[in-house]
Amino acid sequence: MTTEPHDGWTRRYGSPAPEGLPRNDVLDVLYRHRSVRRFGPGEIDDATLTAIIAAAQSASTSSNLQAWSVIEVRDPDRRDALARLAGDQDFIRRGGVFLVFVADWARARELAHRAGEPSDAVEYIESTIVGFIDAALAAQNAVIAAESLGLGAVYVGAVRNHPEQIADLLELPDGAFPAFGVVLGHPDPHDRAGVKPRLPQRVIRHRETYRLPDDAEIAAYEDAVTAYYRTQGEPRGWLRAAIARVRDAASLHGRHTMRRSLERRGLSSR
Amino acid sequence: MTTEPHDGWTRRYGSPAPEGLPRNDVLDVLYRHRSVRRFGPGEIDDATLTAIIAAAQSASTSSNLQAWSVIEVRDPDRRDALARLAGDQDFIRRGGVFLVFVADWARARELAHRAGEPSDAVEYIESTIVGFIDAALAAQNAVIAAESLGLGAVYVGAVRNHPEQIADLLELPDGAFPAFGVVLGHPDPHDRAGVKPRLPQRVIRHRETYRLPDDAEIAAYEDAVTAYYRTQGEPRGWLRAAIARVRDAASLHGRHTMRRSLERRGLSSR
Repeated sequence: MTTEPHDGWTRRYGSPAPEGLPRNDVLDVLYRHRSVRRFGPGEIDDATLTAIIAAAQSASTSSNLQAWSVIEVRDPDRRDALARLAGDQDFIRRGGVFLVFVADWARARELAHRAGEPSDAVEYIESTIVGFIDAALAAQNAVIAAESLGLGAVYVGAVRNHPEQIADLLELPDGAFPAFGVVLGHPDPHDRAGVKPRLPQRVIRHRETYRLPDDAEIAAYEDAVTAYYRTQGEPRGWLRAAIARVRDAASLHGRHTMRRSLERRGLSSR
Repeated sequence: MTTEPHDGWTRRYGSPAPEGLPRNDVLDVLYRHRSVRRFGPGEIDDATLTAIIAAAQSASTSSNLQAWSVIEVRDPDRRDALARLAGDQDFIRRGGVFLVFVADWARARELAHRAGEPSDAVEYIESTIVGFIDAALAAQNAVIAAESLGLGAVYVGAVRNHPEQIADLLELPDGAFPAFGVVLGHPDPHDRAGVKPRLPQRVIRHRETYRLPDDAEIAAYEDAVTAYYRTQGEPRGWLRAAIARVRDAASLHGRHTMRRSLERRGLSSR
């Protein structure tokens, strides 16, 4: 890994960093993020995970409600069962630890129950959304903390392929829903995965009001992504995948039933 | 601000850090997070915000879809209008810049439309959730980047009080929904807001399977939070607020209509 100025920026956008851009070690860690899916041997010891979870808890949370939880899964049999439910992705078995982040209203609901109070507000989609946002803010801090310690991480959205079965495996109570997973581990030194280019900043950053991208901006990004995937030995682009993802219910690979799963797990999302 | 070992940890949990906890500058930034709601004068210049948005774009995003956007609002009239729609919170007017993070399927939908393809998958709650998660991961990186540069930040969930009007003000197209705001600015040096204590780690971190907290754990946290709020001159606790938040539709302060707002803005969430 080079330590040249704005190396992370350059790989992220495929262009030199603008003049006068501020820089520090934290920004370097953030810019250099890459998803690691090949892990070497080695545990994540308890002290290290404790430091990472403390970072997760330090993220903002809506009204300090802390409507999230994390399940630390180390047992090989449970990881194997989870891997099979989450797209059979082998890196779930091979990382140092598998964390399942949970949108969690079960705790507040239980505390209300103990106080003899109702908990009907959990049933609204606003609550579902807060649970997922809280889980995401916490998880992102966990990932940054892990990367700052030299570990690698990858998010696992496929936890939502079979969320009811995963909830059963993790003994989640009513109102707690598996949002996504994060595998943490020691990166395999032979892993070639790099910093993936993102859309030009002007496409996602809007000044005062929203603007749709023009075709030239998307074409330039398509070139950058295609060139990146070529370095990974994969003949892929971006635009066709994005269009395929929004096409129809079948594009969701089984997740078109998510609303029913949320309802069954106590998050009716009405 | 002291730089004693694990100062951030101690304030976060109200207890000494465990033996052998790893430490670095990134973890220090993460642990020391506090929400800043009192800002001094001073802009956030363009180069600084460019660096912050690059950090946001460096966060993971589901299948690289980048289903989020951010609207950079500096115009005083627009910020005033947004502040009035978002709980009339004055710090929205006073920070250096107001960022509205958007769960954004409008871009992918538009690209599908240009290609003559349908975009029915946007209508499912899985897509709504992905948009909110993507926005949250990006925003959290933005907040960490800002804090690493000495800036202060606060999330504004009240953007969801009147999401349809805010979408109109920002000229969001169908499929783009305001998820939450973030105010960035230079902290007022007289601001006393500190590091808010969180639930004990054993309450949110579950080993292998989920566990509900016992009353003693909640009582200990209630004491810690009450003591913290006392330093802020506020006679508040945590448990009663948490119970009040889940009670009924009225607990959502108008956000019980969120599902209808999502539908009207092209995110039916079915």
